[in-house]
Amino acid sequence: MKQVVTFGEIMLRLSPPLNYRLTQTPTFEATYGGGEANVAASLTQLGMPAAHVTCFPANELGQAATQHFQRYGVNMQHTVFRGERLGLYFLEVGASMRPSKVVYDRFDSAFANLRPADFNWEEILKDASWFHWTGITPAISAAAAQACQDAITTARRLGITVSGDVNYRRNLWQYGQKAQDVMPGLVEGCDVIVASENDSEDLFGIVPQEGASHSFTSMAEQLMARFPTVKQVITTRRETLSASHNQLKGILYDGKSFVESPSYDIVPIVDRIGGGDAFIAGFIYGSLTTHDQQQALTFGVASSALKHTIHGDFNLATKAEVDEVVKGNTSGRLLR
Amino acid sequence: MKQVVTFGEIMLRLSPPLNYRLTQTPTFEATYGGGEANVAASLTQLGMPAAHVTCFPANELGQAATQHFQRYGVNMQHTVFRGERLGLYFLEVGASMRPSKVVYDRFDSAFANLRPADFNWEEILKDASWFHWTGITPAISAAAAQACQDAITTARRLGITVSGDVNYRRNLWQYGQKAQDVMPGLVEGCDVIVASENDSEDLFGIVPQEGASHSFTSMAEQLMARFPTVKQVITTRRETLSASHNQLKGILYDGKSFVESPSYDIVPIVDRIGGGDAFIAGFIYGSLTTHDQQQALTFGVASSALKHTIHGDFNLATKAEVDEVVKGNTSGRLLR
Amino acid sequence: MKQVVTFGEIMLRLSPPLNYRLTQTPTFEATYGGGEANVAASLTQLGMPAAHVTCFPANELGQAATQHFQRYGVNMQHTVFRGERLGLYFLEVGASMRPSKVVYDRFDSAFANLRPADFNWEEILKDASWFHWTGITPAISAAAAQACQDAITTARRLGITVSGDVNYRRNLWQYGQKAQDVMPGLVEGCDVIVASENDSEDLFGIVPQEGASHSFTSMAEQLMARFPTVKQVITTRRETLSASHNQLKGILYDGKSFVESPSYDIVPIVDRIGGGDAFIAGFIYGSLTTHDQQQALTFGVASSALKHTIHGDFNLATKAEVDEVVKGNTSGRLLR
Amino acid sequence: MKQVVTFGEIMLRLSPPLNYRLTQTPTFEATYGGGEANVAASLTQLGMPAAHVTCFPANELGQAATQHFQRYGVNMQHTVFRGERLGLYFLEVGASMRPSKVVYDRFDSAFANLRPADFNWEEILKDASWFHWTGITPAISAAAAQACQDAITTARRLGITVSGDVNYRRNLWQYGQKAQDVMPGLVEGCDVIVASENDSEDLFGIVPQEGASHSFTSMAEQLMARFPTVKQVITTRRETLSASHNQLKGILYDGKSFVESPSYDIVPIVDRIGGGDAFIAGFIYGSLTTHDQQQALTFGVASSALKHTIHGDFNLATKAEVDEVVKGNTSGRLLR
Amino acid sequence: MKQVVTFGEIMLRLSPPLNYRLTQTPTFEATYGGGEANVAASLTQLGMPAAHVTCFPANELGQAATQHFQRYGVNMQHTVFRGERLGLYFLEVGASMRPSKVVYDRFDSAFANLRPADFNWEEILKDASWFHWTGITPAISAAAAQACQDAITTARRLGITVSGDVNYRRNLWQYGQKAQDVMPGLVEGCDVIVASENDSEDLFGIVPQEGASHSFTSMAEQLMARFPTVKQVITTRRETLSASHNQLKGILYDGKSFVESPSYDIVPIVDRIGGGDAFIAGFIYGSLTTHDQQQALTFGVASSALKHTIHGDFNLATKAEVDEVVKGNTSGRLLR
Amino acid sequence: MKQVVTFGEIMLRLSPPLNYRLTQTPTFEATYGGGEANVAASLTQLGMPAAHVTCFPANELGQAATQHFQRYGVNMQHTVFRGERLGLYFLEVGASMRPSKVVYDRFDSAFANLRPADFNWEEILKDASWFHWTGITPAISAAAAQACQDAITTARRLGITVSGDVNYRRNLWQYGQKAQDVMPGLVEGCDVIVASENDSEDLFGIVPQEGASHSFTSMAEQLMARFPTVKQVITTRRETLSASHNQLKGILYDGKSFVESPSYDIVPIVDRIGGGDAFIAGFIYGSLTTHDQQQALTFGVASSALKHTIHGDFNLATKAEVDEVVKGNTSGRLLR
Ligand SMILES: [Ca+2]
Ligand SMILES: [Ca+2]
Ligand SMILES: [Ca+2]
Ligand SMILES: [Ca+2]
Ligand SMILES: [Ca+2]
Ligand SMILES: [Ca+2]
Ligand SMILES: [Ca+2]
Ligand SMILES: [Ca+2]
Ligand SMILES: [Ca+2]
Ligand SMILES: [Ca+2]
Ligand SMILES: [Ca+2]
Ligand SMILES: [Ca+2]
Ligand code: NI
Ligand code: NI
Ligand code: NI
Ligand code: NI
Ligand code: NI
Ligand code: NI
Ligand code: NI
Ligand code: NI
Ligand code: NI
Ligand code: NI
Ligand code: NI
Ligand code: NI
Ligand code: NI
Ligand code: NI
Ligand code: NI
Ligand code: NI
Ligand code: NI
Ligand code: NI
Repeated sequence: MKQVVTFGEIMLRLSPPLNYRLTQTPTFEATYGGGEANVAASLTQLGMPAAHVTCFPANELGQAATQHFQRYGVNMQHTVFRGERLGLYFLEVGASMRPSKVVYDRFDSAFANLRPADFNWEEILKDASWFHWTGITPAISAAAAQACQDAITTARRLGITVSGDVNYRRNLWQYGQKAQDVMPGLVEGCDVIVASENDSEDLFGIVPQEGASHSFTSMAEQLMARFPTVKQVITTRRETLSASHNQLKGILYDGKSFVESPSYDIVPIVDRIGGGDAFIAGFIYGSLTTHDQQQALTFGVASSALKHTIHGDFNLATKAEVDEVVKGNTSGRLLR
Repeated sequence: MKQVVTFGEIMLRLSPPLNYRLTQTPTFEATYGGGEANVAASLTQLGMPAAHVTCFPANELGQAATQHFQRYGVNMQHTVFRGERLGLYFLEVGASMRPSKVVYDRFDSAFANLRPADFNWEEILKDASWFHWTGITPAISAAAAQACQDAITTARRLGITVSGDVNYRRNLWQYGQKAQDVMPGLVEGCDVIVASENDSEDLFGIVPQEGASHSFTSMAEQLMARFPTVKQVITTRRETLSASHNQLKGILYDGKSFVESPSYDIVPIVDRIGGGDAFIAGFIYGSLTTHDQQQALTFGVASSALKHTIHGDFNLATKAEVDEVVKGNTSGRLLR
Repeated sequence: MKQVVTFGEIMLRLSPPLNYRLTQTPTFEATYGGGEANVAASLTQLGMPAAHVTCFPANELGQAATQHFQRYGVNMQHTVFRGERLGLYFLEVGASMRPSKVVYDRFDSAFANLRPADFNWEEILKDASWFHWTGITPAISAAAAQACQDAITTARRLGITVSGDVNYRRNLWQYGQKAQDVMPGLVEGCDVIVASENDSEDLFGIVPQEGASHSFTSMAEQLMARFPTVKQVITTRRETLSASHNQLKGILYDGKSFVESPSYDIVPIVDRIGGGDAFIAGFIYGSLTTHDQQQALTFGVASSALKHTIHGDFNLATKAEVDEVVKGNTSGRLLR
Repeated sequence: MKQVVTFGEIMLRLSPPLNYRLTQTPTFEATYGGGEANVAASLTQLGMPAAHVTCFPANELGQAATQHFQRYGVNMQHTVFRGERLGLYFLEVGASMRPSKVVYDRFDSAFANLRPADFNWEEILKDASWFHWTGITPAISAAAAQACQDAITTARRLGITVSGDVNYRRNLWQYGQKAQDVMPGLVEGCDVIVASENDSEDLFGIVPQEGASHSFTSMAEQLMARFPTVKQVITTRRETLSASHNQLKGILYDGKSFVESPSYDIVPIVDRIGGGDAFIAGFIYGSLTTHDQQQALTFGVASSALKHTIHGDFNLATKAEVDEVVKGNTSGRLLR
Repeated sequence: MKQVVTFGEIMLRLSPPLNYRLTQTPTFEATYGGGEANVAASLTQLGMPAAHVTCFPANELGQAATQHFQRYGVNMQHTVFRGERLGLYFLEVGASMRPSKVVYDRFDSAFANLRPADFNWEEILKDASWFHWTGITPAISAAAAQACQDAITTARRLGITVSGDVNYRRNLWQYGQKAQDVMPGLVEGCDVIVASENDSEDLFGIVPQEGASHSFTSMAEQLMARFPTVKQVITTRRETLSASHNQLKGILYDGKSFVESPSYDIVPIVDRIGGGDAFIAGFIYGSLTTHDQQQALTFGVASSALKHTIHGDFNLATKAEVDEVVKGNTSGRLLR
Repeated sequence: MKQVVTFGEIMLRLSPPLNYRLTQTPTFEATYGGGEANVAASLTQLGMPAAHVTCFPANELGQAATQHFQRYGVNMQHTVFRGERLGLYFLEVGASMRPSKVVYDRFDSAFANLRPADFNWEEILKDASWFHWTGITPAISAAAAQACQDAITTARRLGITVSGDVNYRRNLWQYGQKAQDVMPGLVEGCDVIVASENDSEDLFGIVPQEGASHSFTSMAEQLMARFPTVKQVITTRRETLSASHNQLKGILYDGKSFVESPSYDIVPIVDRIGGGDAFIAGFIYGSLTTHDQQQALTFGVASSALKHTIHGDFNLATKAEVDEVVKGNTSGRLLR
């Protein structure tokens, strides 16, 4: 079976127990995650082979992070060990009207200092069915942007489906190049793009036509006109009623039809981090195993809803569990 | 004061902290419980003497389980120590649309291998006011079914009230006899039966009459016709809005009138395990201390609602706390 | 910058983890708090200098409590070390219809046995902008009542604003004097009083006029007539839907106008203790930094709402976080 | 089988995890103990019935303490519930040259305020084989001293063996009477006394004869002359090499012969509290089950050595485990 | 690089925190291990590829155990999922003269019920350099013994080095065959045998010759005479000074020379479980990477010594760490 | 009372619980420390006022670190908040022959990027009695070296005693200057130098004279000749028997006499980090409160020994506790 390949930074995540604040906690829980690796790990839990490609420092923390993903069955054999430090982030978990908060400490990480030539993409991608990247990677450093570009170009040449989550975070772009200059080159090689109207406006200057009945459709149409390889644009709509209570659905435009998933009510939220990544993993899984984009989209959103009930950065739900939610069973009835 | 006597298996329960999944947890919390013993422990917390009868392996875990129930005042003096292993179960606690999940590891336990002759029921029951059993026990082994039958027969002869929670779990019956053949002999000696329409259909082939206005009443009437010692049939109705949010009420039929409790809204659910057992304990308590079956039923459901807010297998609520809920005070206002 | 000064007892708070009951827990979490000190610590988190004055036993627990408040920037330099024991309380955290419960063990504490002459109020208050006390202090012992009276009298003479939370708890008053005899002398010197209609009736025999359109306004008018220095009467209105779900707003009367804050929905509640203290801290902060009592009141209630999402006795929210809620952003949207 | 009865205060013990200091810990572990109750619980673990008599406040902590001892099989049925607070102590566990430290908060506890008339000693002692008390009890209050005297007098009249651990702690005696006046009346009724040369000098003015070859024998002879009911005087000799490393042996004089146990090397020490109580429990067990005082003494010291490896206030070792150490097997070889 | 293959049962290990006793603990730490799998995991930590072959139940615990070994890089791809339960054991960690204690609950596990035909040994062993088994496996069930025999026979035919740790545990052999009848057939195909004089006498009736200067050499000579494929016999000598303090060395006889490692002093012992398995893993590593049996033996014992300082069933030490001990650096000097 | 002032980086320290390895731990304990700040915090615990000067990022972690030192009474009012990240280090705690290990992640921290002009040394040092720095600070960055030089120069001008722990760590010096070029300028202004023979050779090319009876005395003499302001050279001698067992003494040369402290045996070691800093704090305390350098040296070493039994980076021992060890009481006898 061919594997999905993802590429990006993995960080050590440190969070106080329960809802303790960063300023008061005497202990941290440790786990590991990153937007792209979360997609890979969520896929292996669904039963689909996946490999993640990254760069770690050659120390105990790089080893611990490798082992964490190996544990969940992610193929980590292409990890490059070079550099000095593992990026990390601190997560404070909110409740009710108090937001969760992420404090990053990721600058100058081993990943930021990777060398593009260390990655032999021909070799890495030779058994791949799909390649996934996000807009975080090109934001980290010129080297990371270059490696990402190399991967996309190679994947395209090998005929592999490519998806990109543009995920624009303004304050990450600090190494001297502009997202607006870098991102178009990366999107050019993609089949599937995850983007909201805001992302599109900020990155590509695309604004929904005045008077368009659906802003998303209007945006997606312009995006597809600009980047002709793109066949599907998707995103989630999240209603944030509180830090503990969200509603979530997904939408998709393929150039012809607008598709919408059911909306799921999530209360209480156990761990919101990686919700978007679980959506993408579910959508990739659905796309590769069915030929029905409505099914793929709903599978993605149901995956994401379940992720919110699971501790850690990625979705430990199985295919059977997601199917149950897709079927409409959200009763949470005790299983014996 | 006479004591309530219960009989059945007690298991070690192992659960990950918080909402962690079984596949990710590095620690387990340990507690002990079993459907019948939970009734006994819930009763001692309400102030009513209760004894539990069981069979444990003669090792440290059998001792720890004995001590756990002794701690809460359950009379464990009739415990038989024989056999090799304590049954156990793993509990994963869900949230929102993700169900809680129980993985059993109870086959070939000391209790399954008990010897009926080890239990001197005349002696055990000599100070009893009430005897309670469940359909779990006869499902475990022929020996357990025989000991249960002996207990019921003796209790009946001594004029003790007998209640049975039929609690049909198809996949437990694996030792070669059918529930449909074994259960009628046990129900024959009972005064109170806990059963839903599904249980009744599966076990006794009893189906509510077509066109009956209340399916429960119709079922209960037929059950009482078939087993003439039965004077009350009770059950709970649970609305599972999610793993974190349920609504619960209780219903009863005594051959003449249909009785219904108020419905309680439970959100968030702290620990759902043993909710049914807390209901039965509350009903037994109410029945023995009042002569009003409406009061007994409501006391049972209020007990069960409170159990859902308490960690562990049984109800640590006091009579005063249940009374407060019965009076309609569900405000949870801080007590100083 | 001048500092707010508070005076009162600090206790060690011991609570089982999560929602465990006191009777089942094998561990306790330890933190420290007291109604007045909570106000001081909440203020330093908002960026306002505050000092707390108290009496601790000269042992390791007195040191630990001192350090706990020092950690959060409270000026503890006027602590008197004398006496034998630190008062303490046990907190059981409820859920749904099960209330949280506080068991006090505070009698005969070092604070109860303080000597009024140990406190040089002229010196302590020389840089103060505001002095705050509560009705807990005079309830503890005659000596505590005397020290509180000394502080109020000195503050008044020095022209410092004085606020008092009358907080009547009948079962605390056990040393031989009546609240009704002691409290009027203390209220006499105040500018701001926190009191509900119940408090006013119990302590001062003030009953809202029959037929008054607002019971609070009617009460506050009579209170201000009786104690002419009082310029504002405030309180919170709490709707306790369950132990996990409350709604909260604040009201104020200044002799002329009745002011009301928005109502905040709080679900789930992480830690309800100190919610009232956070309200007062927020109100003091708002009063000292703006000249708008509507703004001060809303800032107080938003502070209190946030406190309910934070573990421990006092409010670790910053000014920016409270401002966000005041602006109406209660979405709890993830901050990166 | 007759039971051993003990009488005395039980406290909540709160200790930081591991070797943390009291001034730095954010959590406490909770357990319960007291010198006399520790003897009872150590005995039930050895297989000998034991009851403990005490007075608890009628609150959740009194219940939790009752349950803690019930869990380990101690008969708690004569507990009196009256009064306001449970005594407590804080334990900091040292290491190497840093001593462990106990901070008491036990004044004015429910036990200190007990009423002697609440204890019907005729009834309590009717099935007793042995009664044990310590010098802590008469130090707490006049009422406690009186109840202790009542118990000893009744036990003597009923022909029950009485042991007393004089355990003189100067700073406990604060209610107005002197240990030197109270203790002789209590020792008068005893068969076995636990006392060191220091205790004897401080309490009874007994000083080993100059030039005596053994100071202990000389002291014990004078003690037995003064209190003619006393048949055995015992004590332990502890070499404290560090907080983590002690050597322990026991000695006994019976008026004729001096008996000495082997010395046990204990390293590392897991929990030193209750070591003396485990010694007494072992000695009582040995005395009641053999007629050889050398065996009883060695059984006591081996029990105490094992206690030092067990967390909590009392000895969870079984008879078989103590026998193994008595036989000389201190290899700690893994048991499967 | 060829891999080492091991075959045997993996169990869930549940241990109380710190030195708590099984009868007192409210929580368990969870890890996974088994004598043969521990060898595989210890090898992957040293940098040598290793695969473990086993049979797990098709439930969450089988998955968690798979993931635990995957995490540390063990190839688990040949795991068979069949059967009902994961074997488990409870570990109480002793201290000083109190031994650690293991309570097994492994009967009727998925592994015991494996089907020999499920394992395609030709396929499994095709890339193997070494195959390792222990005497635990044939003790579990006739099916497990058969699968072990199949593996050894296949390995021998494929020219793979075979090692067996005879590890005789009398009370494990309960399925109807005798160790004395089964074991010779398995030892016949081996190159390296781990056995003590006791094992040899119990299993093969081999007794060191009277008057032999070294009992081990005499035993090993007879063993090699009886089983001519065996080229090396090895074992450890352990001096158990206490549960916290052991001394350890290794010895070897190859038919000609007797080889001895240095002796290592281990104090304190963090976790003794898997010490023997770490020795074997180190010896295999040394044998495959050097041609010097003195070096291999010393590397094995140094590995085992380090294992005693590491939590869990297997040795997380790296080659560099073992080399340091081999070089004689046991100072434990802080590394920065 | 004048205060001791220290200057240097503070890091977040993250350590697995107990003796877990970095590669296996799922949680970290969090505390804060740094060589110079540890001196300040150790001094405040002894009762001497101390201020620490540092630069923190303006985020939650900078606040948490500030609060951690405030908690222990260190004056943190001169903290500069500027920059992006808090340096951190991971600590794995060894045992027996397995060393503890520190993994640093401190490059590009807020402290490394400090601006010398942010520190007004005239103002900061105006109430100082003593200034202390270490060789870590000039190793971090040119800016840090400059600020350190400014501080020393100012202190000297103001007549404040200056001590420097040269603490040469080769691999820290990575910003382009050589320790050998930078350090002499800093040592020039000092009164007390902490240095071993190795440090002296590496930094200053000073080698003990051949044939000198004491290598330390010979080195110190040359150092004092080269840097005439230096009046005392001190260091510790540590015998590392294992990671759990060290022996420690201190030595001093003042140009005339060689002074030596007693040697302390430390077993088990709870936490070795900060042992050297505790020594210096004790020596400063002793120097400022007595005029006897033998007493100061012994007080320093006794402080350091106690530190090894205390969790965290600095010494929580009080003066009374150190005095006890100085008096020779290392028995660790329980204190009540
Ligand atoms: Ca490095
Ligand atoms: Ca996301
Ligand atoms: Ca057994
Ligand atoms: Ca149930
Ligand atoms: Ca005191
Ligand atoms: Ca409050
Ligand atoms: Ca009370
Ligand atoms: Ca003791
Ligand atoms: Ca199954
Ligand atoms: Ca082993
Ligand atoms: Ca920043
Ligand atoms: Ca150091
Ligand atoms: Ni977490
Ligand atoms: Ni992990
Ligand atoms: Ni909703
Ligand atoms: Ni739990
Ligand atoms: Ni329990
Ligand atoms: Ni509801
Ligand atoms: Ni808490
Ligand atoms: Ni704190
Ligand atoms: Ni609401
Ligand atoms: Ni403990
Ligand atoms: Ni307990
Ligand atoms: Ni020793
Ligand atoms: Ni462990
Ligand atoms: Ni693991
Ligand atoms: Ni040794
Ligand atoms: Ni620690
Ligand atoms: Ni701290
Ligand atoms: Ni030593």
